[in-house]
Amino acid sequence: MSVSGLPMTVADPALPARVRIHEVGARDGLQNEKTVVPTDVKAEFVRRLADAGLDTVEATSFVHPKWVPQLADAEDLFPRVRELPVRLPVLVPNERGLDRALSLGARHIAVFASATESFAKANLNRTVDEALAMFEPVVTRAIEQGVSVRGYLSMCFGDPWEGAVPVEQVVRVTKALAEMGCDELSLGDTIGVATPGHVTALLKGLNEAGVPTSRLAVHFHDTYGQALSNTLAALRHGVTTVDASAGGLGGCPYAKSATGNLATEDLVWMLDGLGIETGVDLGRLTATSAWMAEQLGRPSPSRTVRALSHKE
Amino acid sequence: MSVSGLPMTVADPALPARVRIHEVGARDGLQNEKTVVPTDVKAEFVRRLADAGLDTVEATSFVHPKWVPQLADAEDLFPRVRELPVRLPVLVPNERGLDRALSLGARHIAVFASATESFAKANLNRTVDEALAMFEPVVTRAIEQGVSVRGYLSMCFGDPWEGAVPVEQVVRVTKALAEMGCDELSLGDTIGVATPGHVTALLKGLNEAGVPTSRLAVHFHDTYGQALSNTLAALRHGVTTVDASAGGLGGCPYAKSATGNLATEDLVWMLDGLGIETGVDLGRLTATSAWMAEQLGRPSPSRTVRALSHKE
Repeated sequence: MSVSGLPMTVADPALPARVRIHEVGARDGLQNEKTVVPTDVKAEFVRRLADAGLDTVEATSFVHPKWVPQLADAEDLFPRVRELPVRLPVLVPNERGLDRALSLGARHIAVFASATESFAKANLNRTVDEALAMFEPVVTRAIEQGVSVRGYLSMCFGDPWEGAVPVEQVVRVTKALAEMGCDELSLGDTIGVATPGHVTALLKGLNEAGVPTSRLAVHFHDTYGQALSNTLAALRHGVTTVDASAGGLGGCPYAKSATGNLATEDLVWMLDGLGIETGVDLGRLTATSAWMAEQLGRPSPSRTVRALSHKE
Repeated sequence: MSVSGLPMTVADPALPARVRIHEVGARDGLQNEKTVVPTDVKAEFVRRLADAGLDTVEATSFVHPKWVPQLADAEDLFPRVRELPVRLPVLVPNERGLDRALSLGARHIAVFASATESFAKANLNRTVDEALAMFEPVVTRAIEQGVSVRGYLSMCFGDPWEGAVPVEQVVRVTKALAEMGCDELSLGDTIGVATPGHVTALLKGLNEAGVPTSRLAVHFHDTYGQALSNTLAALRHGVTTVDASAGGLGGCPYAKSATGNLATEDLVWMLDGLGIETGVDLGRLTATSAWMAEQLGRPSPSRTVRALSHKE
């Protein structure tokens, strides 16, 4: 149900005037979907996301296809979208992945670390410090080539094996990634357990350790319905980069429930209402996610997509 | 997936220390479900909600069964639960409804007004002022009997026919209900379109018109995924009474999508994480909503219920 003039715009002067949305649907979303999507459809998805006004569309992953078969077509996909006038980061796990990404002309990469030993072991089969050591030459070489590097940090608030994750532990690993040269650090609530006070405490802890808010992004999952209120807390602290997934695609395989990433549409609804600029056209974005849901053969988990796509 | 120690508790000193949850699942929830629930199951539901620590459980409605057939058993149900040691408000549309409620021993009633002419017409077949005139003797007589009266206000942020609803319009009707004697005013975002700045603006407008925050409750719908972030904005303004529906039951028939009321569990997860006392046991509440979802034959819309009920 779409009613013109809604949401009504009422700004909050304590919040940023503009937010950059780092769209992860085509990578983090599709990587965690059961359905393997044809390369043509992925390319169309990325194009439509860019066309909806998203200026950063994470495109694919150069992780070995054995680990992420859903994105095994990275070499085919990337050349089809690389001329789009937007930032197209790609995930890179190691130097071999970096070589593949650079050879195709990628200008933005991301590495993924863990704040907990349990998840580093499960996801990377390494200790936290071994994973950092693996990323160091990747980050150094990327920077030498003028390529920007984002560092993802998983399990920043809770971990399925370890429970609550102490702020100091997250600060240590984030700081290591920052010092390595990552220009943006994305704080992931991989199992969706964070609440607003915890979010603020982590952001403050990072600031006190010398990591400025301008280098931080937040990446919330909606497993317990908390993603948007946590985002609001992060905005109030001054964060201006927010990760989200069109249509709410994806979800962590370690968080065993139907819901995953914060849906970009639910985020844009809130930001539109707050008068915070994003450059995104909510109607086009919703149409894209409704189309993608049809490709995947299941309804979008985004409440906004479902409400706006509802036929009278 | 339940992990002990989660959510981690980190308080925010700018938020209230305690929140009263006004549980609406047995009334607002079931009234909008397609399935008609047997009276025994409803009584068990109310008992289990009270047992989970909710101290205010809206029990049923004395609206004419022709309009709300799902709650046509109010006269059978209320005597089965009225001895529970909690507040059990019932909805009352007019003097005839009040007579029925009083004769059964109800001590807390609620009336329901609209902030917009379109919804007053659709829901009550009256103008806004005609509806207020209808409630006046109800409220007066209830107060004379020592019965507390809550005033619900629908469409406080947007209306499916009128679009955005001006703050001044909502303030006028809310103030009229307050002056009539309603001790609590519940501000309803019936179609779920509010965003945090709008919430704060309405609360401020009410304060400026002489309605103190202590008399206000918020009632958000999750149609666009905004309910919890709006609640956070209200808490930051000082609101300490929040309406929610166990398991996210219900939804406005005028908001045409699958999702409706803020789920009590999603709210309690956030409040637990913020160290805000509610008296509610999240585990017991989730078990109750999972049981109710079985009775209704559909999964709970609450993300927390789905995540915590997920079988490994």
